[in-house]
Amino acid sequence: MNLGNVTFGIAQLNLVIGDLVGNCDRLLSAVQKLADQGVQLVLTPELSLCGYPPRDLLMNHQFVRDMQTAIADLACKLPHDVAVLVGTISINPNASQAGGKPLFNSAALLQGGKIQQLFHKRLLPTYDVFDEDRYFAVGNGSQVFTLSLKDGSSLRVGVTICEDIWNDENFWGKRSYADDPVAELAANHELDLLLNLSASPYAVGKQALREAMLSHSAIVHNLPLLYANQVGANDDLIFDGRSMAFNSKGKIISRGKGFEEDLLIINFEEPVLIAKSQADESDDAEIFAALVLGVRDYVQKCRFRQVVIGLSGGIDSALVAAIAAEAIGKENVLGVLMPSPYSSEHSISDAIALAHNLGISTQIIPIQPMMAAFDRSLFALFAERDGDVTEENLQSRIRGSLLMAISNKFGHLLLSTGNKSEISVGYCTLYGDMNGGLAAIADVPKMRVFSICEWINRTNSNLSIKQGISEVIPVNIITKPPSAELKPDQLDQDSLPPYDILDDILEKLIHQHLSATEIIATGHDQAIVDRVVRLVKIAEFKRRQSAPGLKITNRAFGSGWRMPIASKVTP
Amino acid sequence: MNLGNVTFGIAQLNLVIGDLVGNCDRLLSAVQKLADQGVQLVLTPELSLCGYPPRDLLMNHQFVRDMQTAIADLACKLPHDVAVLVGTISINPNASQAGGKPLFNSAALLQGGKIQQLFHKRLLPTYDVFDEDRYFAVGNGSQVFTLSLKDGSSLRVGVTICEDIWNDENFWGKRSYADDPVAELAANHELDLLLNLSASPYAVGKQALREAMLSHSAIVHNLPLLYANQVGANDDLIFDGRSMAFNSKGKIISRGKGFEEDLLIINFEEPVLIAKSQADESDDAEIFAALVLGVRDYVQKCRFRQVVIGLSGGIDSALVAAIAAEAIGKENVLGVLMPSPYSSEHSISDAIALAHNLGISTQIIPIQPMMAAFDRSLFALFAERDGDVTEENLQSRIRGSLLMAISNKFGHLLLSTGNKSEISVGYCTLYGDMNGGLAAIADVPKMRVFSICEWINRTNSNLSIKQGISEVIPVNIITKPPSAELKPDQLDQDSLPPYDILDDILEKLIHQHLSATEIIATGHDQAIVDRVVRLVKIAEFKRRQSAPGLKITNRAFGSGWRMPIASKVTP
Repeated sequence: MNLGNVTFGIAQLNLVIGDLVGNCDRLLSAVQKLADQGVQLVLTPELSLCGYPPRDLLMNHQFVRDMQTAIADLACKLPHDVAVLVGTISINPNASQAGGKPLFNSAALLQGGKIQQLFHKRLLPTYDVFDEDRYFAVGNGSQVFTLSLKDGSSLRVGVTICEDIWNDENFWGKRSYADDPVAELAANHELDLLLNLSASPYAVGKQALREAMLSHSAIVHNLPLLYANQVGANDDLIFDGRSMAFNSKGKIISRGKGFEEDLLIINFEEPVLIAKSQADESDDAEIFAALVLGVRDYVQKCRFRQVVIGLSGGIDSALVAAIAAEAIGKENVLGVLMPSPYSSEHSISDAIALAHNLGISTQIIPIQPMMAAFDRSLFALFAERDGDVTEENLQSRIRGSLLMAISNKFGHLLLSTGNKSEISVGYCTLYGDMNGGLAAIADVPKMRVFSICEWINRTNSNLSIKQGISEVIPVNIITKPPSAELKPDQLDQDSLPPYDILDDILEKLIHQHLSATEIIATGHDQAIVDRVVRLVKIAEFKRRQSAPGLKITNRAFGSGWRMPIASKVTP
Repeated sequence: MNLGNVTFGIAQLNLVIGDLVGNCDRLLSAVQKLADQGVQLVLTPELSLCGYPPRDLLMNHQFVRDMQTAIADLACKLPHDVAVLVGTISINPNASQAGGKPLFNSAALLQGGKIQQLFHKRLLPTYDVFDEDRYFAVGNGSQVFTLSLKDGSSLRVGVTICEDIWNDENFWGKRSYADDPVAELAANHELDLLLNLSASPYAVGKQALREAMLSHSAIVHNLPLLYANQVGANDDLIFDGRSMAFNSKGKIISRGKGFEEDLLIINFEEPVLIAKSQADESDDAEIFAALVLGVRDYVQKCRFRQVVIGLSGGIDSALVAAIAAEAIGKENVLGVLMPSPYSSEHSISDAIALAHNLGISTQIIPIQPMMAAFDRSLFALFAERDGDVTEENLQSRIRGSLLMAISNKFGHLLLSTGNKSEISVGYCTLYGDMNGGLAAIADVPKMRVFSICEWINRTNSNLSIKQGISEVIPVNIITKPPSAELKPDQLDQDSLPPYDILDDILEKLIHQHLSATEIIATGHDQAIVDRVVRLVKIAEFKRRQSAPGLKITNRAFGSGWRMPIASKVTP
């Protein structure tokens, strides 16, 4: 079958979780635009009707009923001559008799004002941030439909949903599920085209893996492939879009934008894309784009307009301020400096310089008066005790309370500024600097914080924060030794191993699941490794109460991290 | 087969998550005691080697290897002539070839110094707090073994693990899974006895359901049944024990204690228990016992000795103080009074009277100096704004910071005191009164807080806090109208519907999954219902950052509550 006569469309949309009315409008508008360009088949992301992941909204019976009404309504409103695949739920009719969850994760084929056919997801990811076995039954039934074309011919089209296409034994060297829906589809049907509706969250390096895997599928099954991925951030998860079309030789014909909405119009007669190599874009640039999207969407989807950030003069808050200014505009970012008697001169001047460079407004509120009040009130009770981390935490909690007061008074969202390294080992104060509605860089290790800031200063990309100034992050913020400045002459490195060593240990411990013994065998000092492992364990109670943190790696502290607190793991 | 010649044992143990060394000692000691009483077969709870739930510890390769070593080691150390079923993990050898998770949730039959046989759990709960599909493959292989008795005869024994026994279609009126392992075992084998290793968390009313269901299983399959349940609390989950033995007529022969460890010695010739009716024990008494265990275990398993609680003079902190005093001893509880200019006289006198009744020590730290310091520091910034919830939250955050300072300085665990009603609608301050390592009554609705306090005053049970005084909770604390006392003459009922109405709406919304329309149809005022539904939704960001809360209902805010924050559900 020659696909050259047909124009396909992919609607790479940023959807709001649960917003059936809004999402239907988004779908209608996108399909109309694509139809105006002569598109005959439109692909949308997984669960595009409700946004992914809807989580326990699916346990709300009314919400499930509303989804069923909304999809039927959407079918009526869509242009009748276009075939549109919309991600939605459907009812598992056999749940109570045959056992299994009550819902399917489905794709609805809408055409001619009706739901023509439903296709159910077969492979249900239940690992990391995914909980699909919690909600969905394993799909059954046909995954194929016939698309009648305007010229009288027709196409046989196979439909898969996200994980369905992630189980090619040859590509992975193993199976994660017993079945390979793609192989079965290809073997049992004379397909002309394969579709995949996805909601695949961003992680560093993941796009290269996706392209390799999807290209492999197209080649192995000699099938052109359309892949629609959701874009936009929902709580901790950032979806990067970058939807794609592959020809049957596994070459990319079209690729959607990363980290923004896009409508792709695809004709398989068009030439193969000169690979806009992902490698040209550094990890730093990609992560920055992801975090900008993550902050913008959380702010907007939670219906805030402005954010407030505590500016310490250090590099973490500098990066968060830069991300926020890029995400929602410098005029919507307030930086608050809260110096104490332990603050260095440069902590003020560096923060002011940063704010100046970013063009954000600032407030200065010295915390000494509150420190004195707390000290006096606790004096009798603490009389016989030495100063310790208590007094350091109090400073952090005074700052956290001031920031929340500003948040409450002006309706700004507070962004917390902790990085992954410090959250891993608990080098942060619960109810203090951990305060905030969103932890913007909670999944960014400290060494990466440095490299992203260096990239911001170096890049020629058209960031709005780079208009008019090249060195946005004052160099002194990048070069000075990190310090919490909670007591005189304090440096992070007095309490922690050097960050390059710490980050390497954490990478092996958290991402590679290595044991202390195995990490030591890679060349690290035993005492340091044992200490880091212990710190990571005992900081669990802090992480449990942390704000949602934007996920940029394959193992973040968040919805995919489920550790016990009251436990005792013998080393 | 007559079981009368055999003595069976159930080791109802309180296990520490991940503590393989300690748990092996607990198992060894229990089995030795039972063996000394002539027991030939010992049943232990699900995953008794590592405690339930181990959560993402199972993703640590070293931990999995350590469990394999530990179970082999345990087999050597146990008395060789007793058969012992220990809950552990085992490796799924076909995971990478045939697809599926790498581990089974198993029971190991240990006897004669070796692992004789492994049995794998088939039904993997993946709902509410359970995530078993995340870790485990569906079990296969034999679930039967032959127990050779001292008199030369033998028994055919079927082994099931927790959920395996919760899918009787006749009992439930539906299937939750395609298979019913118990029915298959009974149909395919000439069994003499059925075993179930469980880790079934407590919820109000659940024990009656368990007894009815297990009795039904015994009767339907005409099989005696031994059921071992874990006891003890692990983070938010409280396991109530109450292990049981049923004869083949479904009558209870033996029942383990609730909320404490117990060793059951069972002989099926013994007379049927005169039902120690659960109904004699009120829900209030049962919940109090559960919460006492929950607090005690969290304190001890996190290796604290003492707790600190903010005493407001209100009923929530009164109940938490009573629970703590009962759990870890009055000498280990510190109550802190932090009056403000808005505090009423009675808030001080009631809190002092409560502390006196409980015999706990107190500290008084007025917060006016910190309020003044914050007000002065924020004066310029807030100059053109009216007073609002900001100033109320600041009071709460000053108190939260004082309590954390005391926690930091003295090493006491801070218990937070919020009840389920206020956490539902967000009538609480993040980083303020929500501060704490454990939210002791986070799953207890306000009306239940009242009834438990009334029960405490009324009961003749031998609570340690009732020694020497009957009316432990000062009556004024129970009878006065609830108030946060964050501004003059403030009452909860100025901001919220009356608690009896609020709790009924919340019960329908959260537990029964009813929609606003359905709740209004039961007779509630539309404006109130709409407001409550909206408040519950917008408080999600607070709950996400709350401390683990002890779960006592079938739907708690905690590991089993997974709601999006950035979402928009059209009503």
